[in-house]
Amino acid sequence: MSLFCPTPFFLYKPYPALHLPTHIPPSPIPILSFFLLIHCPMASPSQSVAAENPPRQSVERLAYSGRVALLLIAARADGGLGLVGERVAVGGWVKSFTVRPKSDAPRSPPQILPPAAVEGRDATCSEVLFKIPILRSIANMLGRGNEPTKHRGIKLALKKAMPSVAYLRINDGSCVANLQVVVDSSICPLEQVTAIGTSILAEGVIEKVQMRGKYVVELKVDKLLHVGSVNPQKYPLSKTRLSLESIRSFSHFRARTTTVASLARVRNTMTHATHTFFQKNGFLFVHMPIITTTDMNPNQKKFYVTQLFNNAEDGLMGSSVKDRDAINLEVVRASSVKDRDAINLEVVRAAIRDKNKRIEELKRSDSNKEALIAAQLDVQKANELAQQLEEQEKALKQGKLDFSKDYFGQPAYLSPFPGLHLETYACALSSVYTCGPKFQAEDSQPTKHLAESSTIEVELAFAAVEDAMKCAEDCLKSLCSSVLANCSDDLKFLSSRVDDKCIDRIQSIVSAPFARISYAEALEMFKKVTDRTFESKAEWGVHLSNEHQSYLANELYKQPVIIYEYPKELKPFYARLRDDGRTVTAFDIIVPKAGVVASGMQKEERIDALTSRIEELGFPQKQLEWYLDLRRHGTVKHSGFSVNFENMVMFISGLNDVRDVVPFPRSKGEANC
Amino acid sequence: MSLFCPTPFFLYKPYPALHLPTHIPPSPIPILSFFLLIHCPMASPSQSVAAENPPRQSVERLAYSGRVALLLIAARADGGLGLVGERVAVGGWVKSFTVRPKSDAPRSPPQILPPAAVEGRDATCSEVLFKIPILRSIANMLGRGNEPTKHRGIKLALKKAMPSVAYLRINDGSCVANLQVVVDSSICPLEQVTAIGTSILAEGVIEKVQMRGKYVVELKVDKLLHVGSVNPQKYPLSKTRLSLESIRSFSHFRARTTTVASLARVRNTMTHATHTFFQKNGFLFVHMPIITTTDMNPNQKKFYVTQLFNNAEDGLMGSSVKDRDAINLEVVRASSVKDRDAINLEVVRAAIRDKNKRIEELKRSDSNKEALIAAQLDVQKANELAQQLEEQEKALKQGKLDFSKDYFGQPAYLSPFPGLHLETYACALSSVYTCGPKFQAEDSQPTKHLAESSTIEVELAFAAVEDAMKCAEDCLKSLCSSVLANCSDDLKFLSSRVDDKCIDRIQSIVSAPFARISYAEALEMFKKVTDRTFESKAEWGVHLSNEHQSYLANELYKQPVIIYEYPKELKPFYARLRDDGRTVTAFDIIVPKAGVVASGMQKEERIDALTSRIEELGFPQKQLEWYLDLRRHGTVKHSGFSVNFENMVMFISGLNDVRDVVPFPRSKGEANC
Repeated sequence: MSLFCPTPFFLYKPYPALHLPTHIPPSPIPILSFFLLIHCPMASPSQSVAAENPPRQSVERLAYSGRVALLLIAARADGGLGLVGERVAVGGWVKSFTVRPKSDAPRSPPQILPPAAVEGRDATCSEVLFKIPILRSIANMLGRGNEPTKHRGIKLALKKAMPSVAYLRINDGSCVANLQVVVDSSICPLEQVTAIGTSILAEGVIEKVQMRGKYVVELKVDKLLHVGSVNPQKYPLSKTRLSLESIRSFSHFRARTTTVASLARVRNTMTHATHTFFQKNGFLFVHMPIITTTDMNPNQKKFYVTQLFNNAEDGLMGSSVKDRDAINLEVVRASSVKDRDAINLEVVRAAIRDKNKRIEELKRSDSNKEALIAAQLDVQKANELAQQLEEQEKALKQGKLDFSKDYFGQPAYLSPFPGLHLETYACALSSVYTCGPKFQAEDSQPTKHLAESSTIEVELAFAAVEDAMKCAEDCLKSLCSSVLANCSDDLKFLSSRVDDKCIDRIQSIVSAPFARISYAEALEMFKKVTDRTFESKAEWGVHLSNEHQSYLANELYKQPVIIYEYPKELKPFYARLRDDGRTVTAFDIIVPKAGVVASGMQKEERIDALTSRIEELGFPQKQLEWYLDLRRHGTVKHSGFSVNFENMVMFISGLNDVRDVVPFPRSKGEANC
Repeated sequence: MSLFCPTPFFLYKPYPALHLPTHIPPSPIPILSFFLLIHCPMASPSQSVAAENPPRQSVERLAYSGRVALLLIAARADGGLGLVGERVAVGGWVKSFTVRPKSDAPRSPPQILPPAAVEGRDATCSEVLFKIPILRSIANMLGRGNEPTKHRGIKLALKKAMPSVAYLRINDGSCVANLQVVVDSSICPLEQVTAIGTSILAEGVIEKVQMRGKYVVELKVDKLLHVGSVNPQKYPLSKTRLSLESIRSFSHFRARTTTVASLARVRNTMTHATHTFFQKNGFLFVHMPIITTTDMNPNQKKFYVTQLFNNAEDGLMGSSVKDRDAINLEVVRASSVKDRDAINLEVVRAAIRDKNKRIEELKRSDSNKEALIAAQLDVQKANELAQQLEEQEKALKQGKLDFSKDYFGQPAYLSPFPGLHLETYACALSSVYTCGPKFQAEDSQPTKHLAESSTIEVELAFAAVEDAMKCAEDCLKSLCSSVLANCSDDLKFLSSRVDDKCIDRIQSIVSAPFARISYAEALEMFKKVTDRTFESKAEWGVHLSNEHQSYLANELYKQPVIIYEYPKELKPFYARLRDDGRTVTAFDIIVPKAGVVASGMQKEERIDALTSRIEELGFPQKQLEWYLDLRRHGTVKHSGFSVNFENMVMFISGLNDVRDVVPFPRSKGEANC
């Protein structure tokens, strides 16, 4: 089955080898224009003129695609009216559609802003009315031809070759707004384009239409450059109003929903704002390693990075395709993961027996010397593999893993604290930052913790904790300002669908200095609260619970709060001990709705204090030698902080489940691609 | 031992709780100014005036540190002369130093540009002369007091409490240039500051000095705010002229060498240029996951991400600190990694026996019921741990790993192809990119391959391979332009120390369009070469060897070359098959010196073609279902490319070993922190 429109309708290849020229010439074959004129009674005289004398392009094309981003049409302040008469190519995926018989079809009201459903297709106003049985009956009785047809209607229209027009609302991910593109059944069999999720690349002219007393634009398509069809029965986004939770089970389509696309644009803005902020302030970006051989907290579960599991597959997977084929092609051919696990010692031993038999046969037949040599080499490989497997089994039986045989010759982990390696660069380049993943193997609270999350890590040499606090506050404000300035449509959408307080909340972070309170003061404050009770007790040495954080940020201050001077037990060993011997110069920034969005501290730069703390905690010092070295040689007062990027997105969007705000959730038991 | 200057010299704390105010007031205590005047015969009248009436600050302080970045002093076009008389605080690490007795010390020639040694301390001109025995003898005979003193000399001067002056060349990582700071022995015992690697935070006035007939600036220090000392015997960078290879064994100090710091600044510029380029062109940044459950190429070795190894430690590491303490505190306390491995079944069983004995004792004594209950809970925990260990041993004995018990409930890997997940976002948001790590478990060629490397991945929907080629070319040009514009001092330094052709090479990439040649044409071209022989043969279906790539980029074209239309066997299964059925629409960009810096392709968007290719290669289809889904529903022509960030740094710097161009090398057997 071809996925594209049948070519008879086109006088060019559906996949032109070269993309659209910057200046689109008039339709090359006059017959095509004629064809369009005949079959498009909707085409206004101005359009046919435009097709022959295209107006000057005043809308910018994308540099590497030839099409125009919908952002520059549908998200314009004038709704695109300034572009009427322009010939453009646009691409996108169908978010909703309407089909009308052509005979007397009045113009369908284009729906540009806002999309009517979080996910999937929109329901037009008339469709909604049509769902009311009595109205449907009346309409049917009156035999009105202009009610919107659904799938059956489309099929009927197509079967009868009834001339029809499809109104497709498409979106290309560049903005919230959709653009209505109008496809006549003379251009393409409409059944190919009338399914939610269909991809369209179309060329045409922007026209002005009236909708509910207001003028908007739509694209009158005269060339369909590409169609990628959809099977509505199998496409998961065909259904309307899917929950974010249900969307998570097909991560690969999530970005086609308006909510996830909006989050992606917000995340993009936040990322760019991060770089802009730090570059402007003289920080250097440093790539931090993901793989570390330093176990910074033996009490914390880790993700190991290993190749020990590969050993079982070595001769097979590690060797060239040729070798692999020689050993056990049929096993690999048939292999799903489960099958591949079956390549164990028994299988290999059986293969060796078979191969030895074959060698004997070859020796007897004496027919083909080359085949004999190949078979002998083959057995040799298999024997090596068997030996590896035997060694592995032996090691495993002893209950020990021999990390000296692993890729790095020692245990290696996914880094849970990228900030630690960043310190080495701060202690040389002074002001540094990084953006990247961090890994926490949390078992509980899947809605709050991800195995893999994004973080901004910052480290400043010659800086005290107050500097880090100030920098963190400015950084968060800068991210929020940028989102307010660049994502207003996304915020409006999130505001209408997720949390109507989100814009106010973001504005509040930008407008005033953050509140500041020490951990001890916070405890005192909780004691004084009489108008409510807390489920958990806030005691010295205990982490502030969600309800306590929430009380401070949502009720008491109603703005971000910096909590500082924590008891040393609550912070990592490298937080600088204060003179009182029981608190450290560490802080958290909590915000309404999302809790802790940033944590920072002045690092312990005194070698004696640091080693005492490590001993106190019983941590192995050997792996930390490099970290201690930074204090032994040219130590410097330095402070840093990390921003929990996902929590910031939760703060901005108002979403409650952290798995919904990342492109691909990775949490306990959840990683589906 | 305190790491800081003894306080008697200071009337303030060595770690002021608040950082320097924006406007530095005159010295608060008149006695200090007096003290400085008395003890600083080098202080010019203008300086003391400046100290009391500080001139208007015309140099910008760092927002979060109060000090001034050396970039704004030493790297100014006028060498800092425009700032003479300004009071500033600067920080940095000592790169080289000279000490002179104060009596008749002439001004030491400050050495600002370029540093005399790639790594470690500089040798001053007079030091070099002093190395010539005859000159040294004459000088000693003449008893000249102004020859530069080395360590012994410093000690002697200090022992005799001889007033001396230290000339320290410090660097804060913001630029290549060092700033000379002048510290009088009355300010601080000079032995504390005269070691390479010492960190200094100092305040003083910028003065003009003459050096070799040229005026430059130095900082006359009157307040030492912080000193972080160094033990020269143990500090690895105390030696001069260390090779990059030897520096790799102490990753945590590498950034203090001028070469690695320059590379860090170049990498920072490249990173920022990447974001600027893609944001300008309407791309959205998307965070790609590091952990994937999709095995995209069963023939390739992978890094597994697992928690199965943690099981052995579960009851210990996974439980709360209290529980852990109860079970086996002494084991954890003493634990290095080796010790922790010892927590095996035998140890736990022995612990259970001991604990059971204790319970019996407690029962007999009948003294403490709470202790008995605690001990019983304790044994219960230990029994659970033993059971887990038994299960694990059993599973291991069977030679099988039960991934259903792993964190994600299935095998998970470090992603070798971030571009594949990016396609899901391109098929919704159209133009997307990401920057992040990718993982290749290569065993060979440690100088060329890293286990963990940085990559820029780009994906464009509605775009053909030519669009991706153009975008990749523009992207590389943009990175290079930005490095030329923003890192001129770094390039000059790299040019003088690593590769004198690097600037020309970078300019050549910016100035002309890249050459383009198909794989087939390249093979034809190699056949025609008669003036040289290639060690390997360039044949259809074989990867172009380094010497062939080098011939094209270094000799034939002397510029970047795009090689396109590769045989399908040489590219991944998802490259779009061309009409000839044997080549794919994939390309590589090779550059002089560094080889392949970018690779791209139009992706196969036709479901039938893609599934055939997967079957042909015998890859398991089940894990790829999500990837195939993108072709089943709303498929779209899309193309992408990835830039090998490290190879680009090698191209720019001229370095040959990829481990030298990354902040923390991760390759086979190499990951030392």
